[in-house]
Amino acid sequence: MRLRNIPHAKETIENNPQYVIPEPKDHRGSWQQNFEKNQPLHIEVGMGRGRFLYEMAQANPTINYLGIEKMDSVIIIALERLMKNPLPNLRLIRVDAEQIDEMFARGEVERVYLNFSDPWPKKKHAKRRLTHENFLKQYETITDFGAIHFKTDNRSLFEYSLMSLANYGMKYDYMSLDLHNSDFEGNIMTEYEARFSQKGHPIYRLEAHFVNKMKACQTLLSDEETC
Amino acid sequence: MRLRNIPHAKETIENNPQYVIPEPKDHRGSWQQNFEKNQPLHIEVGMGRGRFLYEMAQANPTINYLGIEKMDSVIIIALERLMKNPLPNLRLIRVDAEQIDEMFARGEVERVYLNFSDPWPKKKHAKRRLTHENFLKQYETITDFGAIHFKTDNRSLFEYSLMSLANYGMKYDYMSLDLHNSDFEGNIMTEYEARFSQKGHPIYRLEAHFVNKMKACQTLLSDEETC
Repeated sequence: MRLRNIPHAKETIENNPQYVIPEPKDHRGSWQQNFEKNQPLHIEVGMGRGRFLYEMAQANPTINYLGIEKMDSVIIIALERLMKNPLPNLRLIRVDAEQIDEMFARGEVERVYLNFSDPWPKKKHAKRRLTHENFLKQYETITDFGAIHFKTDNRSLFEYSLMSLANYGMKYDYMSLDLHNSDFEGNIMTEYEARFSQKGHPIYRLEAHFVNKMKACQTLLSDEETC
Repeated sequence: MRLRNIPHAKETIENNPQYVIPEPKDHRGSWQQNFEKNQPLHIEVGMGRGRFLYEMAQANPTINYLGIEKMDSVIIIALERLMKNPLPNLRLIRVDAEQIDEMFARGEVERVYLNFSDPWPKKKHAKRRLTHENFLKQYETITDFGAIHFKTDNRSLFEYSLMSLANYGMKYDYMSLDLHNSDFEGNIMTEYEARFSQKGHPIYRLEAHFVNKMKACQTLLSDEETC
């Protein structure tokens, strides 16, 4: 992503703690207190400039949205939009997603959005991909077997992710290998998506949810009366 | 597929029972007797004209191949090639795949190939798709938790299949969303693939294997000492 150099980004972020919540780990288990209403929490990991999440928050007032972005120079754009036109159900945090399970209690999040995540094409960087098993484990915990909604135009990342999620034991609820030529309605685009979908590259999209393997196993084994 | 009308197809098939094995159900559990060597058996469901399986059999003499095709007018092409240039490790059966588990004993097949299967685009025909759960159950049994290798150029069928296989609990071993622009080596093309890949449509390819859920559960639960 080409980035503007925004002077005083850090300062503006620090001066607006009502929008960019500081010290995320301190809010573990009490995120609802940062929103006007107590309602399901959806997060976007790697929010970027925040267009997607802003429009989602506008369109879905009964959901609370939290955008996670580590770069000052990017999150500032989302913050400026929010300062100009505040929304009661959108908050941001400026942090690396590495240890996301330290920021949320079990089940505190209902759904995780991943949009056009960094593909980290080199095999040795696979662990940094946001659909790597290590991240899935964390999403599973913080959503308590909730859902992931994932979009990308990167073929290799989507191939990798389809394998990673299936092999983790997730179930698939929606799949498109060409979102903009599908019958999916109400797609809200990211900045990146709006620019790059013009080029004719397909946009891939997947919805998947976690399965409580322990419960599933207990059911399976008791059905078979072998346990 | 546009088909030649081939006179005497039925007669030729019946006169060559060494290649097109009659009464497949009678061979349940003893398929190896139809081949020169006792070695792993791979089948292709919906073989069509047989180019893929013929070239696979040539390239892999330590595997036995069995092509399944229901249409006289199509299987005759595969038979004629085999009559002209016999192979010791390729046999055919002319039959509908509906009850494939009545033709093979548990574990008699190692791998199932599905290539450019009929997409059956209408929802009400979903059960006829060769990646529908009802077929997966049968492949699981006859391969005793073996593998499926699947290729198609049909986006809707691939989307459906990715969901169907993941939701069945299969694990993914290989994935390409554009096979002809990937680093996959040694791809053997079907007739259809050779003709249609020229048009620039991507070819999708998936390898997946079944999981013995009962065993996996016993391991999981005994690891957790809850059982």
